[in-house]
Amino acid sequence: MFESAEIGHKIDKETYRKAVPALRAALLDAQFDLKESAKIPVIVLVSGQDGAGKGETINILYEWMDPRYLSTLAFSEPTDEERDRPVMWRYWRALPPKGRTGIFAGSWYSEPIRQRIEDEMPLTELDARIDQINRFEAMLVNEGALVLKFWFHLTKEAQKKRLKALEKDPRTAWRVTPWNWARLKSYDKLQEAAGHILRMTNTAWAPWIIVEGSDDRYRSLTTGTVLLDALRQRLATGDNQDTPVAPPVRTNIDGCNLLSELDLKRKLGSKSYDKQLAYWQGRLSELVRDPRFKQRSLICAFEGTDAAGKGGAIRRIARALDARQYQIVPVAAPTEEERAQPYLWRFWRHVPRHGRCTIFDRTWYGRVLVERVEGFCSEHDWLRAYSEINDFEHELSEAGAIVVKFWLQISPEEQLKRFKEREKIEFKRFKITPDDWRNREKWAAYQQAVCDMVDRTSTSTAPWTLIEANDKNYARIKILKTVCERLEAELDGKVVGESAGKKSAGKGKYRK
Amino acid sequence: MFESAEIGHKIDKETYRKAVPALRAALLDAQFDLKESAKIPVIVLVSGQDGAGKGETINILYEWMDPRYLSTLAFSEPTDEERDRPVMWRYWRALPPKGRTGIFAGSWYSEPIRQRIEDEMPLTELDARIDQINRFEAMLVNEGALVLKFWFHLTKEAQKKRLKALEKDPRTAWRVTPWNWARLKSYDKLQEAAGHILRMTNTAWAPWIIVEGSDDRYRSLTTGTVLLDALRQRLATGDNQDTPVAPPVRTNIDGCNLLSELDLKRKLGSKSYDKQLAYWQGRLSELVRDPRFKQRSLICAFEGTDAAGKGGAIRRIARALDARQYQIVPVAAPTEEERAQPYLWRFWRHVPRHGRCTIFDRTWYGRVLVERVEGFCSEHDWLRAYSEINDFEHELSEAGAIVVKFWLQISPEEQLKRFKEREKIEFKRFKITPDDWRNREKWAAYQQAVCDMVDRTSTSTAPWTLIEANDKNYARIKILKTVCERLEAELDGKVVGESAGKKSAGKGKYRK
Repeated sequence: MFESAEIGHKIDKETYRKAVPALRAALLDAQFDLKESAKIPVIVLVSGQDGAGKGETINILYEWMDPRYLSTLAFSEPTDEERDRPVMWRYWRALPPKGRTGIFAGSWYSEPIRQRIEDEMPLTELDARIDQINRFEAMLVNEGALVLKFWFHLTKEAQKKRLKALEKDPRTAWRVTPWNWARLKSYDKLQEAAGHILRMTNTAWAPWIIVEGSDDRYRSLTTGTVLLDALRQRLATGDNQDTPVAPPVRTNIDGCNLLSELDLKRKLGSKSYDKQLAYWQGRLSELVRDPRFKQRSLICAFEGTDAAGKGGAIRRIARALDARQYQIVPVAAPTEEERAQPYLWRFWRHVPRHGRCTIFDRTWYGRVLVERVEGFCSEHDWLRAYSEINDFEHELSEAGAIVVKFWLQISPEEQLKRFKEREKIEFKRFKITPDDWRNREKWAAYQQAVCDMVDRTSTSTAPWTLIEANDKNYARIKILKTVCERLEAELDGKVVGESAGKKSAGKGKYRK
Repeated sequence: MFESAEIGHKIDKETYRKAVPALRAALLDAQFDLKESAKIPVIVLVSGQDGAGKGETINILYEWMDPRYLSTLAFSEPTDEERDRPVMWRYWRALPPKGRTGIFAGSWYSEPIRQRIEDEMPLTELDARIDQINRFEAMLVNEGALVLKFWFHLTKEAQKKRLKALEKDPRTAWRVTPWNWARLKSYDKLQEAAGHILRMTNTAWAPWIIVEGSDDRYRSLTTGTVLLDALRQRLATGDNQDTPVAPPVRTNIDGCNLLSELDLKRKLGSKSYDKQLAYWQGRLSELVRDPRFKQRSLICAFEGTDAAGKGGAIRRIARALDARQYQIVPVAAPTEEERAQPYLWRFWRHVPRHGRCTIFDRTWYGRVLVERVEGFCSEHDWLRAYSEINDFEHELSEAGAIVVKFWLQISPEEQLKRFKEREKIEFKRFKITPDDWRNREKWAAYQQAVCDMVDRTSTSTAPWTLIEANDKNYARIKILKTVCERLEAELDGKVVGESAGKKSAGKGKYRK
């Protein structure tokens, strides 16, 4: 992996002096085009051996490019707002919007490498993390990002020489700490750990660029040239790179599916309803006040046919919670800042801290439901969304979030009845829009999308619960009960399946 | 102040039962109009005596209104990201966008009241804080917000009764802690402290609404009715409430002004420039690595005529800094999310943490420069901006930020020369736009705006430095030197004027 970066690459002063002005002008022009087209976020990872010129490389990029459209994202100790959320949250919040370049000094690789060197992470766990990283980067690339991962390499000898040189110069001596010398001792260990991680994350969509770090001019010129070529190529093709996706399979050739098998006749009388409502709301308010919930969070996701009663169900949950503890997020059209980011970004920004709840009224499943059916995104986009969503929910639950998802199903007849009732009510907020009528015509397509969604995204950590919602009483109680039982099981550690063991391990893993 | 809320207001069950459905429907309709017009953010402060029904009021608002367009903002211990910034930063980041309602459970009043009760805040400091709050709320109202400040009041006897009742009921007993009983003992003290603060912040634009809290039905119905009336009135008039502002005075009847008196012939030879550049960049890089800087932050604000050389000067500063330590914020047209907030919100979101720098390429002064001259905002808006900006910078410096502001001035001849040079260069990024030529025609108007700006916003905590920028060398060195000398004086505590004493006091004050 590092062989080509150990052959003593060098660029002489004259060549460098001649090459830089043209490179600089070209980089500035490429950056200008990038900003104008506002379609591509550029993500540059600057990593490698100590003393291999990471800081210098960042400085040279700032010198050569327009610093107003660069951001450097540095990650030291996570803040308490970050510690209370999934590990990847801090990286999501730092992603550059389209048209800008984000330079990551320290990235999602720093922690796994450190933990491997210090023997804090078993190999199996590392594999899972590598897998997660590869999928995260695939998502970025699919979303149009240009991802450039630089690793600046030095041989052990070269590193020693470099640290000594830095230490000797009074202007740079401060940069060499005892910690750097200790790292030199573990050079072989770092090489082994980094080598493994780099190989496993050396994907077709986001390959590593290994650059020899000993000669300043060679390193700078190489980095600049690689960046320029990549920018130009990406600007020229204009297309996102698409990783392969598999279309859903058809297993319902007998005409039966998950939704057709629901018994929509289920009902609950109002006396029983009142009693159960009081019981489950009381139970829920106890559960979220449980001291064990302080290290967990609750995410309720609501999807359903139009007029299925999402709003009413959400209010019944909300009423059991302390208003200071939860937020309801109505998912509407993305804002301009959200459109400049990967699809899931606008949901990541609402991830609750420990001890808090977020209730989503419509969710990240919009992509595989309305956007799929209405053709608002390409087939490739909604197909890849399934696994991106699974990754998202997996990360949430690894960080202690309890994810509860509901699909509220009503029959076409019941929907028609409710539409007509709504039309009679004078409240403006219940106005039926032409969209609502149009959606009815696509009933079958929506039903198919729902079945595919449940098949592909109902996991043991974040299972779907299908709600027979023709009767509002029945639906509301089933929802409240599901939330309570799930919370109780999670707090008691009685969750079955993949989530069970991982959860506590996960928290131990990331929450140092 | 509290007299009308001690007369034992009561609403009987029947009246309440009859009134609620209509009130609820009307609230929902008003909320719908609010969302549709998307012009007004609603800010509801819920405060008052313990046991006076703050939590219950929030719950009832959630029950009566559409919870999807409500947010409850609760503030407990500040997070470390909040502690590293001005006190008001956490409230700015929590402001509801236009069309939404934010319910503040705990607000900018909580800390001053608590500190007064615990004798932690001298009266003089309290007065300054009250003044700050009044101006903050005036800003909100001027920006179109509807600000409703509720104070729920109880007599001492009623509070005792209420706490006992809560304690007796197993469903609410958890809410009564020893802390609440201790607070009861300091009832008189709270009344006195709150009374004073409420009186001093009972402004025409954001008056307090004192509601007797002992009867649930009275309290809920009053709150709902007051909110409905305010919403309706605000929706009907559509106008922002404008607090009075004073236009700039003309003192330059002799034709002399700050800019005409600048000696634009100042020059620096390239030899001397190279030497001084190395010196001041070295000095700057030392200063930001100074351990004392870890509790401070640096904000550099750049304004200037077109082509005055802001970009070049910014790069010379940036090069002395560690890329992980600073961000450059180019100020362009506000995004959709920024337009839904008060004017200064988009600058508040970039306020750096301690130990960090933010360099603004164009700034919050846009309002009193380009927006004033081009008529992009009303006269009232730019006139009130002066004091809002002073408040903003005062809060920054109180939290340890060092604010350095530059106006780069060139002569019309020099500008013309630079425009013509740029037109010859092939780089796209240097393209001269029709706007640039148009701005030239308004030269005199811009110069007047600059002079007014400096007169009104050059304070001892955040002084303006006018830069003679016809010679780039001279300008860059003067800027670097100014930043260094200011940093040095601030770190040494040698700052004269109002900022000096206040700074350390300020930090002690807010950083608990």
